[in-house]
Amino acid sequence: MGKRIHNFNAGPAALPLPVLEEIAEELLDFKGSGMSILEVSHRSRWFDDVINQAVERTGRLLNFGDDFDVLFIQGGASLQFCMIPMNLGLEGKPVDYINTGTWSTKAIKEANIQGKDVRVTASSEDKNFSYIPKNIAVTKDASFLHFTSNNTIKGTQWAEFPQSGDVPLVCDMSSDIMSRPFDVKPFGLIYAGAQKNIGPSGTAMVIIRKDMLDRIPDDLPTILKYSTFAEKNSMFNTPACFVIYTISLVLKWIEETIGGLNNMERINQEKAALIYDHIDQSDFYQGTAEKDSRSLMNVTFRLPDEELEKKFVVQAMEQGMGGLKGHRSVGGCRASIYNATSIDSIKILKEFMTEFEKKNG
Amino acid sequence: MGKRIHNFNAGPAALPLPVLEEIAEELLDFKGSGMSILEVSHRSRWFDDVINQAVERTGRLLNFGDDFDVLFIQGGASLQFCMIPMNLGLEGKPVDYINTGTWSTKAIKEANIQGKDVRVTASSEDKNFSYIPKNIAVTKDASFLHFTSNNTIKGTQWAEFPQSGDVPLVCDMSSDIMSRPFDVKPFGLIYAGAQKNIGPSGTAMVIIRKDMLDRIPDDLPTILKYSTFAEKNSMFNTPACFVIYTISLVLKWIEETIGGLNNMERINQEKAALIYDHIDQSDFYQGTAEKDSRSLMNVTFRLPDEELEKKFVVQAMEQGMGGLKGHRSVGGCRASIYNATSIDSIKILKEFMTEFEKKNG
Repeated sequence: MGKRIHNFNAGPAALPLPVLEEIAEELLDFKGSGMSILEVSHRSRWFDDVINQAVERTGRLLNFGDDFDVLFIQGGASLQFCMIPMNLGLEGKPVDYINTGTWSTKAIKEANIQGKDVRVTASSEDKNFSYIPKNIAVTKDASFLHFTSNNTIKGTQWAEFPQSGDVPLVCDMSSDIMSRPFDVKPFGLIYAGAQKNIGPSGTAMVIIRKDMLDRIPDDLPTILKYSTFAEKNSMFNTPACFVIYTISLVLKWIEETIGGLNNMERINQEKAALIYDHIDQSDFYQGTAEKDSRSLMNVTFRLPDEELEKKFVVQAMEQGMGGLKGHRSVGGCRASIYNATSIDSIKILKEFMTEFEKKNG
Repeated sequence: MGKRIHNFNAGPAALPLPVLEEIAEELLDFKGSGMSILEVSHRSRWFDDVINQAVERTGRLLNFGDDFDVLFIQGGASLQFCMIPMNLGLEGKPVDYINTGTWSTKAIKEANIQGKDVRVTASSEDKNFSYIPKNIAVTKDASFLHFTSNNTIKGTQWAEFPQSGDVPLVCDMSSDIMSRPFDVKPFGLIYAGAQKNIGPSGTAMVIIRKDMLDRIPDDLPTILKYSTFAEKNSMFNTPACFVIYTISLVLKWIEETIGGLNNMERINQEKAALIYDHIDQSDFYQGTAEKDSRSLMNVTFRLPDEELEKKFVVQAMEQGMGGLKGHRSVGGCRASIYNATSIDSIKILKEFMTEFEKKNG
């Protein structure tokens, strides 16, 4: 094995090393089955155990009971942008969206394509999506209120979720699911592409409150109905078995090694504070998100000029730190520090930032 | 590592051992990147190489050029059942389907849900789907003619594909893609869930003739349009990176170790003949498919009674042969012998069949 880098990728992103080691170790013979997890039938007791553990751990970590179903649906958050208005938009009622950046904008676009009565009730577009809006208005008879909990590109995150009264919240948590505890009760649906905090790419986790299943129109394509997945424990057709298996191992790591979401949040706060504190005491690095809207997952910052930013990314890579380039749509630098990024990686990045400033500041 | 079984699973199914070994070996450090393939960005040169190799090998193995695009779309064949009529059904024109069993029936159901003018132009339902229909009628102005090249449940397979004149063929090749060479020119679209002949579950491979892209209605959800995938080399959103990586390794194995699809077909014919010849010279085992419609991928057979079938499956498992139970909808026994099932596994199964007949016949 070569040397592993400090991985600050925005997604697909770092996974816990013990999870990778376990996968490699049992890749040729899964739990004495004589088969790889890649070769085991999804209708076998082996895979039943895998998916059931992933579902049960999700419920325990987020502290919910039988009111919710946990589903695994291929196609990433992008397919959810399309399925949500299709399944949960009530006849003749508007759908509310809050726009906090690229991903919210894409979700809104898909609701518009379907001809829904879309109300963008709040937006931070006026300041280039650098903050999370406050005092959210909710349309009284809205089907749902959709928002994006963490914005990977602009580096903002909801510290507290919007209040929506009786209108169910629907949330894209692709980039911060399982990074902190929260109350699931106000949510009609939560979805997350796995490839940031809980696994590799290839599946979205969907947590749906069971009353939402009553809304689904009969005439949708079978594979685009949440009920199809809910009725068959996500196995109407062959699911992405390996991705779900890896998710199950990551959730086990969060539950058993980290000790649950309170601990995970504390660690994530500590990690983020190390970099933000460094940015705040420096005139060389400038954070791009407003302070009260900063993301614990994606730390976005600028250097005095673009040449220095390029140099920063290149020299960091030479010293074993990868993924620090900002999203191609905004430039600058970004350290994505999801659950699996260790505090040691953060400390090494911080040291590098100090040295780089000394030499170039 | 424990002992590996002889894997006759219908899917997910056996993968080539060298592929599994390569995955395990580089799981913690992919090509010197210092990251796992599970952690590498889909926008990196590492993953670009992976997906481009998978695309190029597909073109070389099936001997096509720039007229076709190779796409990787999550959601399995089931999402394709929905996307095909949605994307390729021409306004005011019928869509033709041939019904050869469970999977064709599901494809037809989804076209009907969309309100298409569905014409089932041939069917083998009259004899419980035990044969492949001949003398296929094609509706003159049909948008396409859809069929299933291999039927995993009933154990039938098209030896020669239907002739459809100017009407493009659309084919579900989930269970026999890359098992034999064929002429792709008459096909508008070929699709295959990866989990039988080319990889693990979690992605369908779609081969689309470029003129089909002109048919796609503008108002479809973005992620349900083939053009979305064609324009971005399957990376409009994060694809199922690990699944595509494994597919790429399996295609390398077919191309470089097996030596291409002519060799693959010869091996598959040899494998299937070993079991079918044994069935034909026995009064104890009865094949369920008509002889000229037999599948080289899924050998379905019955024993004199259900008790013996149960005993057969249990005793085979005790001797290290897994997956021999027939599909739950039809009973009986089934040996799925896809590309990665070795001739040694077949010989061991044949010996077991001989012994079992001696003791119980």
